[in-house]
Amino acid sequence: MPVTLSDIRAARDRIAGAVYRSPCPYSLLLSRLTGCRVFCKLDHLQVTGSFKERGARNRLSKLSDEQKRHGVIAASAGNHALALAYHGKQLAIPVTVVMPIWAPLTKVTNCRAFGATIIQHGESFDDAKSRALQICDERKMTYVHGFDDDDIIAGAGTIGLEILEDVADVDAVIIPVGGGGLIAGASVALKSIKPGIRVIGVETQNAPTLRASLDAGKIVKIPSKPTLADGLAISEVGARCYELAKRYVDEVVLVDEAHIARAVLRLLELEKTVLEGAGAASLAAMLQYDLKLAGKTVVLVLCGGNIDLTQISRVIDRGLAADGRLCRFVCSISDRPGGLARLTSLFAQAGASVKEIDHDRNFAGADIATVYANCVLETRDHAHIDEIEKSLRAAGVDVVSRTP
Amino acid sequence: MPVTLSDIRAARDRIAGAVYRSPCPYSLLLSRLTGCRVFCKLDHLQVTGSFKERGARNRLSKLSDEQKRHGVIAASAGNHALALAYHGKQLAIPVTVVMPIWAPLTKVTNCRAFGATIIQHGESFDDAKSRALQICDERKMTYVHGFDDDDIIAGAGTIGLEILEDVADVDAVIIPVGGGGLIAGASVALKSIKPGIRVIGVETQNAPTLRASLDAGKIVKIPSKPTLADGLAISEVGARCYELAKRYVDEVVLVDEAHIARAVLRLLELEKTVLEGAGAASLAAMLQYDLKLAGKTVVLVLCGGNIDLTQISRVIDRGLAADGRLCRFVCSISDRPGGLARLTSLFAQAGASVKEIDHDRNFAGADIATVYANCVLETRDHAHIDEIEKSLRAAGVDVVSRTP
Repeated sequence: MPVTLSDIRAARDRIAGAVYRSPCPYSLLLSRLTGCRVFCKLDHLQVTGSFKERGARNRLSKLSDEQKRHGVIAASAGNHALALAYHGKQLAIPVTVVMPIWAPLTKVTNCRAFGATIIQHGESFDDAKSRALQICDERKMTYVHGFDDDDIIAGAGTIGLEILEDVADVDAVIIPVGGGGLIAGASVALKSIKPGIRVIGVETQNAPTLRASLDAGKIVKIPSKPTLADGLAISEVGARCYELAKRYVDEVVLVDEAHIARAVLRLLELEKTVLEGAGAASLAAMLQYDLKLAGKTVVLVLCGGNIDLTQISRVIDRGLAADGRLCRFVCSISDRPGGLARLTSLFAQAGASVKEIDHDRNFAGADIATVYANCVLETRDHAHIDEIEKSLRAAGVDVVSRTP
Repeated sequence: MPVTLSDIRAARDRIAGAVYRSPCPYSLLLSRLTGCRVFCKLDHLQVTGSFKERGARNRLSKLSDEQKRHGVIAASAGNHALALAYHGKQLAIPVTVVMPIWAPLTKVTNCRAFGATIIQHGESFDDAKSRALQICDERKMTYVHGFDDDDIIAGAGTIGLEILEDVADVDAVIIPVGGGGLIAGASVALKSIKPGIRVIGVETQNAPTLRASLDAGKIVKIPSKPTLADGLAISEVGARCYELAKRYVDEVVLVDEAHIARAVLRLLELEKTVLEGAGAASLAAMLQYDLKLAGKTVVLVLCGGNIDLTQISRVIDRGLAADGRLCRFVCSISDRPGGLARLTSLFAQAGASVKEIDHDRNFAGADIATVYANCVLETRDHAHIDEIEKSLRAAGVDVVSRTP
């Protein structure tokens, strides 16, 4: 029996008071930016930074006493692991998580801090999962799948109930899709209560598994490519999720890396809030496509905030580059005194601010009297970068390359 | 007549509906971290990213029709400029802002986007201010001071009313201090309604102007040093603010740069929210000092989120270094093949992850057979860094320097 509205309502009662009832405020600046009436469901403000707590809490609460005693196990290097670890601790259920050996140090440390037992095993997620299933058998634990599980889906679906309570006149809801648990549960809730609502899923084009499956009419496995939205990088959508999405999801759009980076940047700048790439995918969809929502009331589901801080600067830089607010020129200039001074004064005249500059003597082509100057500039927009390039060429500077 | 509670209540009515009534949610993670019951007043979620809108809106609303027609002028490279520009546009009052020539491109662009006229003039803030006063005279404009102004103070004070509405049982409120307008207004509201409340001001030790003035019993001018909390880098507290603070503020603590960076980092990680250094100073005070607030109900005023995105990565790196989660070793190693391989395998054995590594052949001391390897590592904490250094030395590696 697929998950129904009454399962989701029961999950709502089960998780009440234990999972944060996140707010869904109106955003003036995003409304201006997109031309819609935009509300953001801030589910990345959960204690462990993602919506995954909804399903985890629901699943753990339903275990029998014996299952609780033996504990649960999962394979995850991400938000599912954190959510299980935290709610396992709250409910005094032992949690074991198998993470691939490359799992970031912070994730390992955070899961341990919540009291979970962490086993690092395997080069790939599949290796970690096999090991988890093996331990699960040996120790009579319960394996908790991250998305292809009715209780996880019903738990995730509670987000739909909350959205309708806060934004009763919502026309469309945009939801990121990884394994599909969130959109499956949310779309059941949304469409069951308000059939006219539009539910739009968002996948990264580097892992378009639900879209490909819906297009093919059956589940298709697609090896995922690396992406900023690593929480969406899943090679196969869950079977339960697929069945529900087929029925309740209106469309699935694919976003590219530049728009994901830009969405994270917009949310940092305009909303002062920290999203991971996956968590910001709903805004990326609005930035990349005309979804025919002008003037409509739209809820963006922001579902995860656990971006690695040591990587956040890279996302910012990519977002700024996508905006044309940061650019790189490599120019071939004279190695004699004054070459660099002349170049930097051209930048100043063009109104660009130099953020970084370095010199490369070793790889500057055949002419021994020239060097490569590698310049990172702060600029206004893409048109400004065009102007700068034009003025450099007009002054006879050899522009070797330019990004973007 | 100094600002009173009734001025603040009048300001509240004047700005209602035009300035965001920001939330003040409980923070589970910050409560755990500090051992208090912590609430955060999220005033950086204003449209222009800071509390400055409260005063600006109040001040602009009180202008006469003639004053409105002639417009207002201010000198600022920061949040005051943005707040005036935005509310000036809402009220159809022309706004001119004089910014020093080094003002960041984003601030200039944002103020222009809100419709303000921007004049870039002068190497220093004082130069910009003189120019603004001169134009003000010539064009019969109204000069709007950023903090030493009764209407600005009364507007800022509305934050105190909101805090008491949301957290009626608050024991202490911690408030950043730049020119002193915010703490002056807020402390009037807080102490007038609830005299037993503790009001703690926070300055950066690089600009301790209110603290020095209170200690000296008169206003003292102190040239400010550069700081991450650039919004607090003011060399002289306002006279009105000083008088009110003398009466209503219980104490002023000084925070250092490492704790400011750490506070910004904690808010990014735990609260998923973006603060500028000045805006995070209240948390920095709790991190740096034992304020004898264990078990008490504390409101942290988070007052500004306009951190320059091209600089945010530096703050993150400093915060991670302050935590011992990022460190740098410079080691002198053999220039022969295998030198680097040996060093990196030592790091791996010690459980540290290498983020960056480079080689410096030119400045590696007298011995021509050695080079400097400059290594940035991701680590768990300070103890972990100690362990790594110990294991490097035990293996005979020449550790030239280590940070932190």
